[in-house]
Formats: sequence, C-alpha cells, structure tokens
Amino acid sequence: MQFLDYFKLRPVGHRIEDLETPTPVIDINVVMNNTHRWQDRCDRIGIANRPHIKTHKLVGLAKYQLDQGSKGITVQKLGEAEVMADAGITDMLLTFNVVGRHKLERLASLARRTDIAVVADNLDMLEGLSWAGEQAQRKIKVLVECDTGAARNGVQSPEDALNLAKHIDKATGLSFGGFMTYAGVGQRIQGQTFLMTAKDLCTKAGLSVETITTGGSPDMWKDDGLEGITEYRAGTYIYFDRSLVVRNTCDWSDCALTVLSTVVSRPAANRAMIDAGTKALTSDMLGMEGYGVVHELGDAKIYAANEEHGYVDATGKAGALRVGNLVRITPNHVCPVSNLFDEVVFVQGETVLGAVKVDARGLVQ
Amino acid sequence: MQFLDYFKLRPVGHRIEDLETPTPVIDINVVMNNTHRWQDRCDRIGIANRPHIKTHKLVGLAKYQLDQGSKGITVQKLGEAEVMADAGITDMLLTFNVVGRHKLERLASLARRTDIAVVADNLDMLEGLSWAGEQAQRKIKVLVECDTGAARNGVQSPEDALNLAKHIDKATGLSFGGFMTYAGVGQRIQGQTFLMTAKDLCTKAGLSVETITTGGSPDMWKDDGLEGITEYRAGTYIYFDRSLVVRNTCDWSDCALTVLSTVVSRPAANRAMIDAGTKALTSDMLGMEGYGVVHELGDAKIYAANEEHGYVDATGKAGALRVGNLVRITPNHVCPVSNLFDEVVFVQGETVLGAVKVDARGLVQ
Repeated sequence: MQFLDYFKLRPVGHRIEDLETPTPVIDINVVMNNTHRWQDRCDRIGIANRPHIKTHKLVGLAKYQLDQGSKGITVQKLGEAEVMADAGITDMLLTFNVVGRHKLERLASLARRTDIAVVADNLDMLEGLSWAGEQAQRKIKVLVECDTGAARNGVQSPEDALNLAKHIDKATGLSFGGFMTYAGVGQRIQGQTFLMTAKDLCTKAGLSVETITTGGSPDMWKDDGLEGITEYRAGTYIYFDRSLVVRNTCDWSDCALTVLSTVVSRPAANRAMIDAGTKALTSDMLGMEGYGVVHELGDAKIYAANEEHGYVDATGKAGALRVGNLVRITPNHVCPVSNLFDEVVFVQGETVLGAVKVDARGLVQ
Repeated sequence: MQFLDYFKLRPVGHRIEDLETPTPVIDINVVMNNTHRWQDRCDRIGIANRPHIKTHKLVGLAKYQLDQGSKGITVQKLGEAEVMADAGITDMLLTFNVVGRHKLERLASLARRTDIAVVADNLDMLEGLSWAGEQAQRKIKVLVECDTGAARNGVQSPEDALNLAKHIDKATGLSFGGFMTYAGVGQRIQGQTFLMTAKDLCTKAGLSVETITTGGSPDMWKDDGLEGITEYRAGTYIYFDRSLVVRNTCDWSDCALTVLSTVVSRPAANRAMIDAGTKALTSDMLGMEGYGVVHELGDAKIYAANEEHGYVDATGKAGALRVGNLVRITPNHVCPVSNLFDEVVFVQGETVLGAVKVDARGLVQ
C-alpha cells in the first residue's frame, strides 16, 4: 500500500500559491523519511516503537506507522483512542490517568473492542479502573506511571511503584503490565535507575514486568539509559519542529509541517504582518523567542502574535516581503498546531496533493 | 425573547459534577450582566456598540448582543463572517485585511448578501477589494486602519490615512467609510489625536468620515480619548478573563467562563495534576505567571502545563485537592479557549443548562 492510499484527499488544486491561508502544509516525503529513520533505529536497538498520535491525530498516518513496523500506538486521551478504535486500530496505550464516571464508561466500551492499556499513578483511581475492567468483562492492562524526573504525573519512588503494582495485580478486572515514564529531557539515565530498581522489586515480589516504556522526541537518538527499556513513545518526530531543531534532534529539512501564511500588510520597514497568529501557531514558546520562524528567509522570527495577526521581523531577509506574498513558518511546537485545524494540506515538494481531515482534532479528553 | 431561546442546547445533565472534563463552563447570568452593563455604558456615552464575536464565536450570542442594542458585530476573519451571515446577521465589520484570490471571492460572495464593511491599510490591497466590490455589484465600505500606537497593522500617519482614503474613494466598487484602530492599552488619547487629525484632513479634502471605530476590552470603562469616536469594538468583555481582572477592568465574579477540570493525580504535596493543559487553556500568558488560576482555591496557579496536563500549585488552599475533585480555572485569555472546543456548556449558578456548539470555531481565515 502506498502512502497516499492511507488517506482520503480533498482536492485543493496543485500549486502552493493557490492554497487558502493560514494552513498547515505537510511534505509527505519528509514524513515518510522521518517514519523510516525512526523505525529503523527502533528495530536496530531492539525496542518496540509505539508512536504517539497526539502530534498528527490522523487515522491514515497512524495506520501507516503501524504498517511500517510500529507495535501499536500511544494516545493521550479517550477521544483520540475512540477515533483510532473506530478506524480499526486495536493496540493502544493511553498515557493519561482515566478518572471520572463518564471516562470510565468510555474506557469500558473501548476495552470491549480493543486491547487498550492504560496507566495509573495512584491508589485512588484503581477502583474506577477495576470497575471498567469488570464492565468490559476482560482484564485491562495497567502500567504504573513513574515520575523519573519530569515532576509531572507518576509515583515518586520505586517502592511506591511496587506498592501500586501489587494493588493492580490484586484488583479484579485489571492486570499489571509494567512501567511507563515520560522522561524529562536529559533525564533518561536517572529514569533508568528508577525503573530498573522498580523492576527488581517487582520481580522479587513475583510480579512480571512485561513492558517498560519511555517517551519523548528530544532525546530519541541518544543511546544513554535505554538498556532495559522495551518500548519507546515518540510523537513529534513524525513532523519535527523548531524546538527540536534548536535541541539538535533534527535539521530544518526534517521539519515536515510548516504553516503557510499570507503577508497582509507592510506597515513599517521593520515588520511584515501575516494572517497566522496564535490561533494558527499557538503561544507555545518552549523557552524560545518568537512564535516560529520563516526558515527560508534567514530564520526570520514571528516576533509577536495576536489571535489572527503574526508579526514577522523584517529587519533581515524578510524585508523584501510584499503584501500578497506567502511565507512558510516552522512552528515552535508542532503538536498543538494540528489541534487547531480541521484539515491539513499534503504536499510533495512544491506540488499540492490535497487536504486531509484531522480526524482526532480537539476532542474532549 | 429570553436568553436561552437564542440557543439550541444539547442535554448534558443538570449537575456540574456530572460533566465531562475538561470543558468550558459559561454562567449565563454573568454573560447577560456583562452584556447589559456594556450596552448601557455605550448608550450613555452615545457610542455605537459593535461587539467582537471572535471571543465567543456563537451565533446565538451575537444575535442576543444585537437584540440588546448592538449596532452590528465585528468579525476577525471571513470564516466567522460566513457563519454569521448564514445565520442571517448582515451588519458586520471585518477588521482584518482581505488579501488573496480565494478570500476576495469569498468577500464578494458575502458582499452580495450582507452589508459587510472591511478595512485596509495599504494601497497594494485596494485592487483586490475593488475587484470584490465589482463582483458583488455594490460598493463595499472600506475603513482605513490606523496604527495609533499598537504597532500592529495600520497606516503610520494621518497624512497616509488621507492618501489611502482618497484612493478608496476613487476606486470602483469601494466607498470610504472612515477610520478603524485597535488602540493599544493605555494609548487611546494618542490614538484620538491621530484620528481627529486624519478626520480633519479628510474633511478638508471633501471626504466625509462616517465612522471612527476603536476597540479593546482593557480600557473599555475609561472615558479618556473617546470624544469623536463613533463606535467601540469590545470582545473579551462578554466573558472577561484573568488578564482583565489583573488590569482592574473587571472582578473575578464578572468572569463568565471557567474551564472545568478534574484532578487526576496528587503525585507530590506541592502539586495537583489536572486534565486541562495547553490544549484546553492555551499557552497565552499575556505577561502573567501561570496558565490560569483556580479563584475559589485562593487563586491557586496552574504553574505549568503540557498539552493535556495542568500542574496546580498545591502549596496553598489547593493542597486539599484529591483525585477526582473538580476545579474551575479562570483562563488568562478567554478568546482562544473558545476556539479549542467544539462545544461549551451553559450553566446558571450551579445548575447545568446544556451544551452549545461553538459555531465559528477554528475556521480558515
């Protein structure tokens, strides 16, 4: 099956100059290359690849990733899981605590028709998960989320991980599946120590640790701290973005998604105003300056943004921009950009292929 | 017609505790109060009220604002204008430069069925607007956008405003409608000087200046610099938000929209993790710390956020939060929050009334 066979394309002409703006434009050659390079690496080091689909939210791309060798997918909310399940994808890990009656009902429904696994980091939520497993009449696999340095969710010590694993193992409707962490950038080695200690504790207690899963695109190419890890969850790598260029995880040419925007005003010599603001680029700064850059214009910064206005620094190469010109912005953080648009446009080099619906955009958690 | 008659409500139960999270929750009593207070003020000072619907994106609320005395509405993109036109609203001002073939065709189509007025701040775009007016077989009213201090779009001097007004007046398919500015916060007096000078220049040149329109919720209650202004465009005032509490434009009790979220983890004493991250709250900081606050818990800050995770500072009153508890977050900037959700939930005090579709969410400019 060819890449484009995974998608239903809506015709929008063949030239980038003819597209409506602002719109995300995705080069499928770069997507295919990013997919293969990462899959090859996972295969080479013997780690299962479980890409996070929160970045692209496209059913077709999730299926493509699976067919290229991914073991399953990662989702961040039930809404994403439901869309992927409706499309026939069954091997999913939901890396967010499921809490509350509605969500537990939805989880039970998903568990009846998929092999969804979930995470937990506290005892209070186990009763609900157990109820969902009972409703589904099967054991839902639960991984213990470990806080290995990111200071987000997760149990705080290997001993706490063991304790929670024991409770999961005993609960009706649940089975203990292993450990999950989102290692903070540069924190994978300390994470490994935590996880291997927790694994030893579980093994000694007679609990088998099937999966140890870590994630994060920034450190994806680094080998440190991967020993003992069975699975990797990367999301952003499919498109990459400015933040990952800045971190030296990728080059500009690896960035598959740019936001196409039109210059609508040149009010002053030092700025060009465009029709992509925070409702197209988001306000995610990730520690950088500006809301994205126009790489082909000497990395001209979008130095400010309102909801529908972007302010391009025109003191350099962007000084040549005129009203009506198009620019392509590499966003700081690509994941929330997909979430703002109902459609993205696929291109191959300079040829437009068509628009694709963002299947899992903006769904309730 | 009663407030609720403007909306089609989808039943979602009657108790806030039964809602799915995260979701925007809007108290209609506060919305009605905000509407009336602002309309009363506009009436009192004799300025036309043209609310900006980019904040709420709800057809029903736009119609309610009109029936309470608004002269017309303001939209920020053609997508919003089209949704409002489809609902029968005809008096609209689009405060964003229309540039590009697709957009001009859409403008022509809108001009055939509504009294849409637009803005311009440069000569390069006039040919396109003129073409759209010719296509629509009527004169499209064009206001000259003036940069009166915000350093965004706009002509840079009253002389440039006159020059552009003359060109609009001469162009086929267009009529000169006056001046538009988005006055920066605290810059209304300098804006008034600019606008009155431009008006004098036009009057002397035989051009009548029908409308002088300014905008912005932060300075909405201030009287300085309003003399000579004929129309005010405020958007955020319908819901208000944390940024406007911080600027003393409103009180916490005037904030109609909060984001309801569930505590999913208490990994450490100093933090409670919730299911509202940047895909629910946005990353708009507007110069403040954190991604919003839980006012009822001593203004506990959402001190960090990832896409689906919010980190509540639990060192104060939020320390009592437990897994499964609900919190209501007043967002920093309410306008882009509406844009992230397909539905919002109307409440009256603690009673849930139903969910309402966000009609103009996320449309292409």
